[in-house]
Amino acid sequence: MKEIKKVSVIGIGLLGASVLLAVQRAMSGVRTAGFSHRQSTREKARNLGISHEVCEDIGEAVKDADLLILATPITIFQDTFRQITPHLKKGCIITDVGSTKQLVHKWADKTLGKNVFYVGSHPIAGSEKRGLEFARDDLFNGANCIITSDNTTNKRASKIVENFWKGLGSIIYKMSPDMHDRVLADISHLPHILAAALVNASDFEELKYAGKGFLDTSRIASGPANVWTDIFLTNSTNTSRAIDRLIKQLNKLKAAVKAKDIKKIESLLEQARVKRENLVNYKIGKGEIL
Amino acid sequence: MKEIKKVSVIGIGLLGASVLLAVQRAMSGVRTAGFSHRQSTREKARNLGISHEVCEDIGEAVKDADLLILATPITIFQDTFRQITPHLKKGCIITDVGSTKQLVHKWADKTLGKNVFYVGSHPIAGSEKRGLEFARDDLFNGANCIITSDNTTNKRASKIVENFWKGLGSIIYKMSPDMHDRVLADISHLPHILAAALVNASDFEELKYAGKGFLDTSRIASGPANVWTDIFLTNSTNTSRAIDRLIKQLNKLKAAVKAKDIKKIESLLEQARVKRENLVNYKIGKGEIL
Repeated sequence: MKEIKKVSVIGIGLLGASVLLAVQRAMSGVRTAGFSHRQSTREKARNLGISHEVCEDIGEAVKDADLLILATPITIFQDTFRQITPHLKKGCIITDVGSTKQLVHKWADKTLGKNVFYVGSHPIAGSEKRGLEFARDDLFNGANCIITSDNTTNKRASKIVENFWKGLGSIIYKMSPDMHDRVLADISHLPHILAAALVNASDFEELKYAGKGFLDTSRIASGPANVWTDIFLTNSTNTSRAIDRLIKQLNKLKAAVKAKDIKKIESLLEQARVKRENLVNYKIGKGEIL
Repeated sequence: MKEIKKVSVIGIGLLGASVLLAVQRAMSGVRTAGFSHRQSTREKARNLGISHEVCEDIGEAVKDADLLILATPITIFQDTFRQITPHLKKGCIITDVGSTKQLVHKWADKTLGKNVFYVGSHPIAGSEKRGLEFARDDLFNGANCIITSDNTTNKRASKIVENFWKGLGSIIYKMSPDMHDRVLADISHLPHILAAALVNASDFEELKYAGKGFLDTSRIASGPANVWTDIFLTNSTNTSRAIDRLIKQLNKLKAAVKAKDIKKIESLLEQARVKRENLVNYKIGKGEIL
């Protein structure tokens, strides 16, 4: 990674801190700087040695960065772009770890200057845990990472971002921001919505009898509400379309259950069973799961 | 368990075989007999020493049983009741391991004679795996087991069934069959429906990008379609009501996402997050999860 001598990260939560630790581990000679809007987070990050430098000022943090990574909530990205623009060095590559991409590409096009290059990244890694205390220097090792670019994206910058995540051990997929947001609505945003809906659909007194099935199905509902609110806000059309498709499937099953249509119930369940089995086998084949 | 000298099990799948093995381990001096409708299963059960006796004939298997446990698919219970009635000894206690209870109580009331006693059991244990090869003699140890009875249920029989499951290490809850089926629809049948609906809602090409969140949320969709079809058929009203409640919650979230109503999205997600956190803490307190 000879193109990158300094990596800066804005936002030092679980993901931001994990990027900084992973760079320190995997890319010797690369200097790291972090910035958080919170004084308490900056102090913790300093104490834990999350990066070489933890800056008091956002301008200071991004100065001289060859690669700048935004790891704050998505909804403040546009403001951040505005704030950092005067401090960026020419040729700086900017990426992020946000879970939606269409709006971020739009904001980057509108707000960032011509001398710097935005490329979208979405490392599919994390946890329902929050905060830099849970950061791990191997979080991206073996994880999928989607790199997004559109027709305004600089190809060299895109290649450098790709190599950066590869350097941290990630498996790279490339797609347009539009496709990214559509796919992620289905495989990530929708499961979150339905986990929350499932928990909200029953009384606590009933949930006390819940077993492992319920707990697994609802696990991701324990994720941070503000982070997921941001995701849904910035991918609202795809998410609501995905909910519609799920409701359609639920209505199909409901109709079959109400009518006690054995063949129909069994064929819908078997369709899901076989599809999921194929998915698990596909992922075992790719080495993504054991 | 001085009241029980012989335990018979009809149906030697994962659950039935685990009951027989557990009795052999935990209740020395109790004789065990098993019956399966399939010749190949009977042979396997004999080779694996699942019970003292594996009978070729259902009448032979239930003869002299003090406690008889049905562990076949629920939908054949009524036929089984009819078939075994002439062979049961006076005072025989009959229970089962089925996942729904209202219909089974009804069938027992209608079909079994006055000289034998039905009590419902639902040990909440198992696996998405199938077959006696996966049986374990500790499957019920530490598992919740719901005992159901209504105003026709013999109290002494109910107490004996309770002590039987306690003897295998289970934690006992008692409720009416109506309450059982309503609660289970919400905490078990609904998660299964939505896991299947989630898998069916997206194309396989998109699912290839799925991460751990999707896999956990959909895990139980890998369960056997015929077993779950039986469950939904025998608890159809509660299950379809539960689906309605889930769709209502999904529509609430959809409306908030479509309207980009930050406060509403965040409050619905936070409600789910806090409720699930309380549930996890409750279960940790009870020693059910670590």
